[in-house]
Amino acid sequence: MAFFTGGFVVLPLTVLEKSLNKEVTLLLKDDRILKGKLVGYDDYMNMVLEGTEETQGDQVRRIGTVILRGNNVVTIVPK
Amino acid sequence: MAFFTGGFVVLPLTVLEKSLNKEVTLLLKDDRILKGKLVGYDDYMNMVLEGTEETQGDQVRRIGTVILRGNNVVTIVPK
Amino acid sequence: MAFFTGGFVVLPLTVLEKSLNKEVTLLLKDDRILKGKLVGYDDYMNMVLEGTEETQGDQVRRIGTVILRGNNVVTIVPK
Amino acid sequence: MAFFTGGFVVLPLTVLEKSLNKEVTLLLKDDRILKGKLVGYDDYMNMVLEGTEETQGDQVRRIGTVILRGNNVVTIVPK
Amino acid sequence: MAFFTGGFVVLPLTVLEKSLNKEVTLLLKDDRILKGKLVGYDDYMNMVLEGTEETQGDQVRRIGTVILRGNNVVTIVPK
Amino acid sequence: MAFFTGGFVVLPLTVLEKSLNKEVTLLLKDDRILKGKLVGYDDYMNMVLEGTEETQGDQVRRIGTVILRGNNVVTIVPK
Amino acid sequence: MAFFTGGFVVLPLTVLEKSLNKEVTLLLKDDRILKGKLVGYDDYMNMVLEGTEETQGDQVRRIGTVILRGNNVVTIVPK
Repeated sequence: MAFFTGGFVVLPLTVLEKSLNKEVTLLLKDDRILKGKLVGYDDYMNMVLEGTEETQGDQVRRIGTVILRGNNVVTIVPK
Repeated sequence: MAFFTGGFVVLPLTVLEKSLNKEVTLLLKDDRILKGKLVGYDDYMNMVLEGTEETQGDQVRRIGTVILRGNNVVTIVPK
Repeated sequence: MAFFTGGFVVLPLTVLEKSLNKEVTLLLKDDRILKGKLVGYDDYMNMVLEGTEETQGDQVRRIGTVILRGNNVVTIVPK
Repeated sequence: MAFFTGGFVVLPLTVLEKSLNKEVTLLLKDDRILKGKLVGYDDYMNMVLEGTEETQGDQVRRIGTVILRGNNVVTIVPK
Repeated sequence: MAFFTGGFVVLPLTVLEKSLNKEVTLLLKDDRILKGKLVGYDDYMNMVLEGTEETQGDQVRRIGTVILRGNNVVTIVPK
Repeated sequence: MAFFTGGFVVLPLTVLEKSLNKEVTLLLKDDRILKGKLVGYDDYMNMVLEGTEETQGDQVRRIGTVILRGNNVVTIVPK
Repeated sequence: MAFFTGGFVVLPLTVLEKSLNKEVTLLLKDDRILKGKLVGYDDYMNMVLEGTEETQGDQVRRIGTVILRGNNVVTIVPK
């Protein structure tokens, strides 16, 4: 239940949907950062990224397609 | 079920709703602080912030639009 | 299901309700202490405090209105 | 579903109920100990204690009435 | 849904039931060990022990009747 | 919902079922290893082992029958 | 509820399904890495791998068939 009070409520899943096929940056609970094109997600905020680059401290790795469990995600930053 | 006993019960989601399009400060479980305009949320207290500034220790970063998973949030302070 | 056996069972949410518009002290899982007037809550024990004072170690900060996620709360002490 | 096989199954909530208005000792996940008169509980084992004494290491504090979130409790020892 | 394939599936709750009024040893997530007579349980594996002995490192304490929240339990060893 | 696309999807619970009465090796979240004959399980992957051997670092202990809470399990390796 | 807006939403479970009988690399919460052929999964992202190789720091072990609890998984990288 999201209230409408003359303004707009943007549902988080709607922002995810608008980010489809665009680059997003995910911060995970273990401090890793994943950057990649968001190609999918579900209601639990499980996500699918393509062309993913993983950053952990100084280390950067290209890991391609990734399925990510939503409960490991802290923040999602659309480009 | 929130009881009404002659006074008022303010539901937490109602306060979120009243904070829409206003600045909020979020304290996350990992001690990061996010400040930004609240533009959206859902029943799980997932939120969408715009113009977000992230503070972690001494570091401040501008990260723009952020989708935040509600289960990482400790407190929400509306401006 | 709470049993009644000649005495009374006080439901925790009822105590919250009776604490409305009174000062409560919350101990959070991360050892911070929040003191403020309880103006709202919901069934998940998400709460809304006003005139909140946050204590963390030696540091005390006034943070005004706070929405607090219930799963971060350990104990609630009504005044 | 608790099975009965000629003996008795005591449901944990029944023991809580029998402990109403008696002193109980709660061990919390963060190693604090709460002692007080159990005056209420609900199905999630959220509890209400009165005349509560909190022990943390060497420190003992009297904190009066406490609402306790059940998911912080490890063991409950009725007197 | 537990499958039967010519052999037997023993449901964990059935083993608990068969352990009623017998001594069990519980290992908790915080490494404490509880030994006592199992007199009750529910579907969440909350349990009631009587004549309980708690071992934590070198320390052994007799704590009598204990209600134990199931989500703190790692393993249950019936005698 | 598991999809079938010309190949087979093996449900994890089906593999558990096929492992009944065989030796399995469980890795727990606290790094302990349990080896024993799987005699039961339920839909939460709570399990019952018999003739269990527990390994923790260098220490090996025979602990016989064990009921194991599924949420402590990381991996299950059937023999 | 996944929205379709002229583009495609790829559900995470669909990517898992397409990875069936192919090698996947799983990163677990405890930093272990499992590589193996994905032969099964369920809606909780519990998975079954075959021919699994486990890497933990410098150590690599072949562990064959593995049932993996989904809540221990951070990322899944299909080959």
